[in-house]
This record gives sequence, structure tokens and C-alpha cells, in this order.
Amino acid sequence: MQLGMIGLGRMGGNIVRRLLRAGHTAVVYDRSPEAVAALVEAGATGATGLEDLVAKLEGPRAVWVMLPAGAATEDTVNRLAPLLQPDDTIIDGGNSFYKDDIRRAAALRGQGLHYVDVGTSGGVWGLERGYCMMIGGDKAAVDRLDPIFATLAPGLGEVPRTPGREGRDPRAEQGYIHAGPSGAGHFVKMIHNGIEYGLMQAYAEGFDILRHANSEELPAAQRFDLDLGDIAEVWRRGSVVSSWLLDLTAAALARDEHLDGFSGFVADSGEGRWTLNAAIEEAVPANVLAAALYARFRSREQASFADKMLSAMRKGFGGHQEPK
Amino acid sequence: MQLGMIGLGRMGGNIVRRLLRAGHTAVVYDRSPEAVAALVEAGATGATGLEDLVAKLEGPRAVWVMLPAGAATEDTVNRLAPLLQPDDTIIDGGNSFYKDDIRRAAALRGQGLHYVDVGTSGGVWGLERGYCMMIGGDKAAVDRLDPIFATLAPGLGEVPRTPGREGRDPRAEQGYIHAGPSGAGHFVKMIHNGIEYGLMQAYAEGFDILRHANSEELPAAQRFDLDLGDIAEVWRRGSVVSSWLLDLTAAALARDEHLDGFSGFVADSGEGRWTLNAAIEEAVPANVLAAALYARFRSREQASFADKMLSAMRKGFGGHQEPK
Amino acid sequence: MQLGMIGLGRMGGNIVRRLLRAGHTAVVYDRSPEAVAALVEAGATGATGLEDLVAKLEGPRAVWVMLPAGAATEDTVNRLAPLLQPDDTIIDGGNSFYKDDIRRAAALRGQGLHYVDVGTSGGVWGLERGYCMMIGGDKAAVDRLDPIFATLAPGLGEVPRTPGREGRDPRAEQGYIHAGPSGAGHFVKMIHNGIEYGLMQAYAEGFDILRHANSEELPAAQRFDLDLGDIAEVWRRGSVVSSWLLDLTAAALARDEHLDGFSGFVADSGEGRWTLNAAIEEAVPANVLAAALYARFRSREQASFADKMLSAMRKGFGGHQEPK
Amino acid sequence: MQLGMIGLGRMGGNIVRRLLRAGHTAVVYDRSPEAVAALVEAGATGATGLEDLVAKLEGPRAVWVMLPAGAATEDTVNRLAPLLQPDDTIIDGGNSFYKDDIRRAAALRGQGLHYVDVGTSGGVWGLERGYCMMIGGDKAAVDRLDPIFATLAPGLGEVPRTPGREGRDPRAEQGYIHAGPSGAGHFVKMIHNGIEYGLMQAYAEGFDILRHANSEELPAAQRFDLDLGDIAEVWRRGSVVSSWLLDLTAAALARDEHLDGFSGFVADSGEGRWTLNAAIEEAVPANVLAAALYARFRSREQASFADKMLSAMRKGFGGHQEPK
Repeated sequence: MQLGMIGLGRMGGNIVRRLLRAGHTAVVYDRSPEAVAALVEAGATGATGLEDLVAKLEGPRAVWVMLPAGAATEDTVNRLAPLLQPDDTIIDGGNSFYKDDIRRAAALRGQGLHYVDVGTSGGVWGLERGYCMMIGGDKAAVDRLDPIFATLAPGLGEVPRTPGREGRDPRAEQGYIHAGPSGAGHFVKMIHNGIEYGLMQAYAEGFDILRHANSEELPAAQRFDLDLGDIAEVWRRGSVVSSWLLDLTAAALARDEHLDGFSGFVADSGEGRWTLNAAIEEAVPANVLAAALYARFRSREQASFADKMLSAMRKGFGGHQEPK
Repeated sequence: MQLGMIGLGRMGGNIVRRLLRAGHTAVVYDRSPEAVAALVEAGATGATGLEDLVAKLEGPRAVWVMLPAGAATEDTVNRLAPLLQPDDTIIDGGNSFYKDDIRRAAALRGQGLHYVDVGTSGGVWGLERGYCMMIGGDKAAVDRLDPIFATLAPGLGEVPRTPGREGRDPRAEQGYIHAGPSGAGHFVKMIHNGIEYGLMQAYAEGFDILRHANSEELPAAQRFDLDLGDIAEVWRRGSVVSSWLLDLTAAALARDEHLDGFSGFVADSGEGRWTLNAAIEEAVPANVLAAALYARFRSREQASFADKMLSAMRKGFGGHQEPK
Repeated sequence: MQLGMIGLGRMGGNIVRRLLRAGHTAVVYDRSPEAVAALVEAGATGATGLEDLVAKLEGPRAVWVMLPAGAATEDTVNRLAPLLQPDDTIIDGGNSFYKDDIRRAAALRGQGLHYVDVGTSGGVWGLERGYCMMIGGDKAAVDRLDPIFATLAPGLGEVPRTPGREGRDPRAEQGYIHAGPSGAGHFVKMIHNGIEYGLMQAYAEGFDILRHANSEELPAAQRFDLDLGDIAEVWRRGSVVSSWLLDLTAAALARDEHLDGFSGFVADSGEGRWTLNAAIEEAVPANVLAAALYARFRSREQASFADKMLSAMRKGFGGHQEPK
Repeated sequence: MQLGMIGLGRMGGNIVRRLLRAGHTAVVYDRSPEAVAALVEAGATGATGLEDLVAKLEGPRAVWVMLPAGAATEDTVNRLAPLLQPDDTIIDGGNSFYKDDIRRAAALRGQGLHYVDVGTSGGVWGLERGYCMMIGGDKAAVDRLDPIFATLAPGLGEVPRTPGREGRDPRAEQGYIHAGPSGAGHFVKMIHNGIEYGLMQAYAEGFDILRHANSEELPAAQRFDLDLGDIAEVWRRGSVVSSWLLDLTAAALARDEHLDGFSGFVADSGEGRWTLNAAIEEAVPANVLAAALYARFRSREQASFADKMLSAMRKGFGGHQEPK
């Protein structure tokens, strides 16, 4: 099947490669000619711009936009739409906010265009492991693109099948789902990332406690000097907390048990924040997901104003003078 | 190798079975004669009491106590110790508090006895998958018991090896570690459970938000009616949040997407609580692990007094009358 | 000074009364003729609709809209604006979202109109104690309205003056501030409410622990049967946690120590939610404010889906069957 | 009435001064002769050691120990007890752990001695404002000491009386309560401090959001440059969040709006930690109180290991390299 791809960064480029390897064809564009050339070498057809890309695709066209969420994606969709024909489909494979998807889909529907949002997890590992995809859009468009999704998805692999799924949508165990109308794909991906933050923070706190088990705050007889790398490794086998994140943790600790290569500064992206906004809109408590996001905010501060407020009050009522 | 086992519940019984299958021998006791008889049928030697069990073991003896933490374990250790000889070893395989281990080990050391604490994860799946074990105790005792631990552990299995572990303690990737002196095994197991609570709560909150994506609190155009079972399934393949807990979640949702078979009441055990106490002693922040424990506390309350306090204040300053 | 007031509920009505008592004049409108009649009896001039109200005010007019935030306020502002003349001022005294203020102010500025947002705290106590006001808008409009604000504010009262404020804006210690441009008033009021939630939850949790000090989960020798009403009362005098919320708490507990008159169901309003959204936009950690909001969400649920998820996982890995 | 006082630091010294001013008499001891001399000058009788102090008191004696909780207090109580006679009373006015009180009271009861624990709030302000006291102990001993407590307490002062307290224990509105048996005083004081942490953190987070309202993370049109000192001041009058802590905050911000005099490092003491332990023992959720304590833990760390763990995982799954 033929796909247009706009944006040939690590994600977009590897998606095209995985498709080409499986016999699909692709017309590709990126503002970097080198990025286009690299994919042409891999078998894709290069395009010099959006108009050229559209011209080189047969209708009904499917154009995958793989750009940073926000202005870059919005602008490209806006420039692309007028070039397309009714029944063509725009796929947003980035990390867009689901309310933007809902808005765009409604606008494009007026032009007879389909809008499909694809949330993907797997990142840099996708070329090798396949992309776990959560897809939103109208059924006709999503079904038509099924050969693309089936190729990109990880497939059953060595993951054991879940008992009791007989008769249910088989796509889920291949690693992709049609989650609902436009926006549903990115909504589910957003929550995925919210959970991801929570899982990561649970491990981080637990290992932090293990690491401080030798703290001088403790009575000498109750201190332990633990090997965190071995602990992460042993939990990978047969324990309740085994996971892919734990696999990565074990590998990181095997390389550098003290993680001295990291500064402690942790970035966050839109999905973690939007997950909390969504929870608030739904009035669903989310203490763990919130704490996980806040830990990242806090990691980027030194001498926070909130903490200074505490010291100021302590000085006020108790004459406490905090050490500097 | 020969092992004595006291306590033949699901855990103790299966541990003996796994050992017998591998050619080890066992002398077993339980206050239930039926439990003893079942293991005798499986090849163990039955004992009628602690004295009989000790008498049937060759020195240096190794006696595994597999009883509920607290009074049951404490009492058994206290009755067992006077029956043993110097260089014998008591193994506490339950979920004891690590400070109890430290105390008991010090007391038994005075009698020339070894005390080894084994935290195990894997529960009901252990007979089949093996037991992930975190072990505390003096090196001589732990080394001597290695054939037992090696048999009980899951082994490499199909879990890919972690790159960069060449030259490190090979036991970890077999699924067991010698974490440190007495108490260290249960300490690490305790943190394991603390993390487990955090991971579970992260999934729980995320799925709760997914489930409420169709809430009437939301604008109609922004509602999604999501298939939670398919979402859990798709995340098992290639996503960052894949884990054994997610596998179990996918299976549970495949059986009953609305989880109507559950009341919402969630128990907690000592380890989750002790993890927080340990974090406090170390002055390590643990917002996620705490929130996870508190969610369980809250699940068991209705009309909490704290909430009534809020209503009382709201009425005081705003004349708000909460609905009943 | 003359003020128009639209919306004569408890807040709007009492604001007018407080102004009339101080010699100001008011033209009032409410869709309920009875509400208008009651204020006319108190000395106000009644109006039969927006056009009538505008006609009865001398320019430059000041019209205070005191309606529920959202559609009611938006609609009234939209209908009112075309009736006004350049240099007239619309005051939004409700609990509007500050981004709505920013948007409205920009739109009205194009018509030569001023838009002033006033966040008020004090609720039902305002007629007696005065209204604590946080005001946003351009300086000219806010300054012109100063006689109104000065009358509505509590004034110095018996609250001791803060040392070190000599030479600073004297309005703050009178109980009102010009916080900044349009939106700033409601922004500050929003954070006020966020803090309010946090304070309330801190008391609520503390008293909940006091109340459970007699819990059967505790060893008998460590249980206390505490008198919560006396505790709230004693903390009012000389303790670090004394506050107006504690005064209200003491009064509520004096009436009904078990708070049996409350269901435990706690409502929340927009400000608590928006506070969290603002914190997220600013990347400021807000664990306490978030936990306070979530406690209210949780208070309105029974048998939450999140909790059922935990039970489902526990059953999966441990065979635990939660009690019903 | 006559009181012995051991420990003449800021708290112990001021307590004696307040008693002397009201006509009570005191025999005082401190390991610093200068501290003793200063109180002798104020009218107290000096003692050269515990034996001398006991000898100078008439029976039944009341000896107030005002020393740091833990070893200092424990040691002094242990040395003091053998010097006393049946029916004498030891008062622990420090910040002892309530379980230590329970243990000590039981031991002293065997010697016929009373043990009274007094939690006090008010700190450096106590000499002037009086001490808010929460008292544990047997009724006979607490009643006998009533003249002491009545003098130390703040009294009704200018705090309005709580409606509905007619017929209830009048001591509470004088600023002291007999909370229950030994340990109850410190238990209630402990929860007081737990609440204090929560209140402080609520203000701290709220002001942190206010301060970041001008953050460059925000769209320019939605930024506010707020005057935090004025905001704290205005909330003192008529708002729902008025409190003594807010009074102190307003004073601190009037002196230094940016709080540049503080490092951001915030200490914590035992009570905040014990409050969480107590909540866990009672199975009471305490998200706000926990978050408040954790914020202090976090304030004392830079580049936390937990945060490095997050970075290590992010690099593992996404190739993200955190900035340094």
C-alpha cells in the first residue's frame, strides 16, 4: 500500500523503513533534503514539497504527518488540506493534544477529508520491535489503512496470549487498536504516558529508598549497603514488579550503579500534563500520576520559592533559622 | 540437600514440591496432619512436631519457617531455637518485618545459630515459574543453602539477559540474590512490595481516567467510549508500560471489562506500610508510594470523617449544604 | 457613588446593601422581580432589564455583574456591552475563569469599555465582616471605583497591623488590592481557593487521625479516646494552627462532635481545579493542593473503578480475593 | 504553687518567668550555671543538680523536664525517678514521642509516681501570648497541677468564644486541655504539628504558583506580575484563608518579598514524621500531611537519586538525554 510521509526524523524515517521492508511504497518529504535522500536510498520516492508529495500519491491518498505536536503539525495540516481531494486521509502520528484532533477532524470533515490520529509507543525501539499504536478516526479510514498498521505493529511476537480474548478484536494482540473516533488515539496514548510517569516514579522512589538504606540517619545496626543493580536484575525474574521499564533500569544500573551520568534534571512532555487535566475534567482522583509529574517539575528547581516560604514561616513562629 | 519445612500452606507446600521434584529431600511439619500427609505422598518425610522434625534432620540442619509474619513466626522461632545445635540455620521465608529479623539474628547468633531471611515474590505462580528470592544472612549460611535457592529460583528462563552484567554475581539473573546480612532480604522484599503498590496504583488511576472518558461531566464532543480490555492488551506489545501486572490486568479485563466481580475494597499488608516508615526514617520523599497505600486505606471507608470535616467547614464559611 | 448591579442573589444583594448603608446609590436588576423589590425597599432603584438599568445610570457607568461563572456571566456581558458607552466599566464579581476575563477585557477594550474582575472571599459573612477583594483591571477604571471597593472592604478592623508595611499600598490592609490587569483579580482569588482546599484538607486529615486514635487496629495500651471539640477549641488560643477555618471547625464540633449531620460527600468548584491547571502550566509542583482536590473527587465515589483494578491485579498475582 | 524546672533554654526559662510573674515559685536547674543564675535573678531558687532540686521542693513534688526529646529527656527522667517519693509527679514538657510517654508512665506508676506529658504550641511567643497546652496523665496529677497550667495558658484573650460550648470543659477555651492518659498530650501535639506542616505547605504551594504567574512558560498575554506581600496582607482581612501562619507570612513578605534571605533548605522534626506513622497504624489516608513532610525532605536534596532513575529510564526507552 502507498503512504505519504511528512517528517523524516527518527520516528518518521523508521516508520517508512519498516513499511518499505514489508513491500509497501512511500512518498516522503522533509525540509531537510538529506533526510529525504536517505529514505530514497532505502527505496522511497522523494518529494520536494507538499504539492509534489500530493501529486505523487494516488488517490485516495493517505498522508502521515510525523512532526512535533503543536505549531509544526498544525501548520502542516493547514497547508496540506487544501491540496487534497475528498476521501483522502491525513494521519497525525505525533503527540498531538486530543482536543486538537477533535477540532481538526471536524474542520476537515467539512472538506470531505478523513483525519486519523495515531498515538505510538515504542519510540526508538519501534523499527526493531514494532510500534504499539492507538488509533482514532472514522471506521472507513482506519480500516482502509489496516495494511499499514498491521505492518507497523509488533505482532504477537513472543508475548504470551491473554486467556479469555477469544472472539475479541484481534488487532489488539497484534499491537494496534482502533480506539474510537478522531482524538481517541491520542487520548489513549496520553493516558499511556500518564501511567508511564507513575510507573517510573514508583520505581524511582523505591530504588531511592534502597539506596538510602545505608543512610547515616539510621541506627548503625539497621543499615544495609545494597547492590541496586543486582536487585533490579533479580526482580526481572518471577517477581510481581517485572516490566520493560525494569529491564531498562537493570541495564542502566549495570552500566553505572550510581547513575553519575545523570544530573537529576528530568524533562516532561505534554501528555503527562494533559493526563492530569483530563482527570480533573472527569473528576477522577489521580494522586500517583500527579505526584509523578510534580516530581519532574521539582527536579528542575533549586531552592524553590515554596520551600523558602516554609522557612519564612518557621522563622516567624519558632525563631528557627534554616541552615544555608 | 535436606531441608526442614514448618508450615505447609500454599507457599510452604509448593516450595517443598519444587525441591522434591529436583531431587532434594524434606522433613515437613504443619499443625494440620492432612497438610503433612499430602506432602508425604509427594515424597517428603512427615514430622509430628518441632522436636520430631529436628530429630529427623541431619546436622548442620536447615529449617525453613513458612508461617504468617508476626506472632506465628516469632513463636515458632522461639520454640525451635532451643532444639537446634550450633551451626544449624533457621530460615524465615515469610513476610517478616526486617527489624524483627535483625533482632532475632542477633539473639540466635549468641546460641551459635544462623538466621536467614528470605523474601519471595511470585506467590501462587512460584511452583510453576519459580520463586524470585531476596536473601539476608551471613555468607556461610547463605552459601551452604545455595542448592536450595538455585532450585527454587526461576532461572534465566526466556527473559533476555541484561547487557553489561558480565562478571557480576550470576545469582541475580538466576532469580535470587544475597542482599546482605540478616534483615536485608526482607528489607528488599518490603521495598519490592512498596513499588508494587505504586505500579498498581499508576495503572489503576490511568484506567480509571480511561473509563471515565465517557463521563457526563465532559462536553459531548469530547467523550470517548473506550474498550479497556483492548487497551490493556495493545499496551502489552511494544509499549513502554508493558509489565507482568499489565498482563494480569489484560486477563482480568478480558474476563470482565467492568470488574463487577470486585467490591472496590482493597486490603493492604505490612510491607506497603513498612516501606513508608523506612522512607521516613531515611528522609526520602515517597509521594507515589504513599498515595498508593492511602488509596487502599480510603477504599475501605465510606463517608470518611475527613470528608465530613470538609463539609462542616464549607457550611461554616459559605453556608454550603452538601447533598446527602 | 452610583453602581449598577445585575444579579441579586445572596452575594449581589448583600453587596448592594452594604453600599447603600454607606451612602452610595445603586440601580439593580435581577430576573426575579421579588429580588429587585427587596432591594428597592432597602433604598436601591429598581430596573426592569439591562436597557432600563443602563438608562438609569449616569456616565461613566459602572455595572457590576454578580452571576454564576460561565454561561450566565458570559451571556450577560455580551448583551450588556452593546448598551454601554465608551469609558463605561463592566465589573465581573463572580467566580469567572481568569482566561475568560483576559479574553473579555481585550474584546471590550476594542469598544472603549473597561472590564474589571473582582474576586471576593468572605461569602455569607461579607455583609457583616466586609468583603476581601482581589481586583484586576486597568488602573483608571479601578481607581475610579475606589469608593465602592473601600466601602465593601472589611477595613483594618481588629486585625493587628503587619509590621514593615509602612509606605506600601494601603489598600491591602483595608482588605482589597488592585492585583494587576484584567484577570489578575480572579487569578489571585483562584489561588486563594486552591490554598483554602489545602488548608481544609490538612485539618481534615489531622482530625481524622485524632478520631481514629481509638481504633481497634491499635494495641489497646496505645489507644486514646479524644474529645475533638476540645482539641479544636484549645488550638484556637496561642497555637500555630489557629485560623478562621479552625474557628469554624471548633464551632461545628461543638454542635456535633461526630459530624453525623454530614454525608461525607464534598463538592468542589472551578477554582480548585483551575489552580491545578495553572500550576501545571507554570510547572510548579502542587502535591498538597492536588491531594486536597482529589480527596473531594474521591468523596463522591463509592467502589471506585481504580480500587477494583487493584483487586483484579491482586487476584491475578496472589489469588487474593477481596472481601465484599 | 511550687514547681521544679529542669532545662532552662528558651522554653523552660520563659515558662518559669511566666509562672514567677503570676506569683508561683520555682526551683530551677540547668547544666549551665549562667542559665540558672539568670532565673535566680528573676526570682527563682537555683539548684546545683537533680538531688539538690528535689531536696528543695516540698512534697508532693512536681518536676517539669524541659529538654530535647529522646536521650536527654529519657536520661533525666531515669536519673530523677529514684530521687522522688510516691505521689510526686514528673512532667515532660518537651516534644517526646507519645509511645515513650506511655512506656515511662507505666514504669513510674510502679514506683507510685505520676507522669504528665505536656505538648505546647506557641514557642517563642509563649511568654507573651501564653502557651497552648495539650496535657496527658492521670486525673489526680493533672488536676493538682491546674494552677500551673492555668497560669501558663493564654486565657480567653481577644479570641471570640465559640458558640455552643456552654457546659463543656472550660479549660479548652482558656488554652489548655487534659487530653487523656499519659501520652495523650504529646499525641495531640504531634497531630497539631502534622496539621501545621500541611497548612504551611498549602500556603507555600499557593504562593509559589502566584510567584510563577509571570513565568516565561506562559503565553505573554496570560502572565501576571503579582505583589505577594500585598496578597498575603489582603487575605488577612475577611478571607477564608486568614490564620496566624498567614499573619507571619505577610510579615515575612513585607520584609523581603523574594525571601532571598532563605536558602530553601527546610528542616523537619519528629512530630511530622510520627504523625504519618500514626496515620499508617490507624489506616487513615493522609495525602496532604505526607506531601508536606516529603516536600521538606526534598528541599534538602540536590540531584536526587530518584530523579536520576527517571532520566536513566527515559534514556533507555526514548534515547532522551537530559540536559545537565
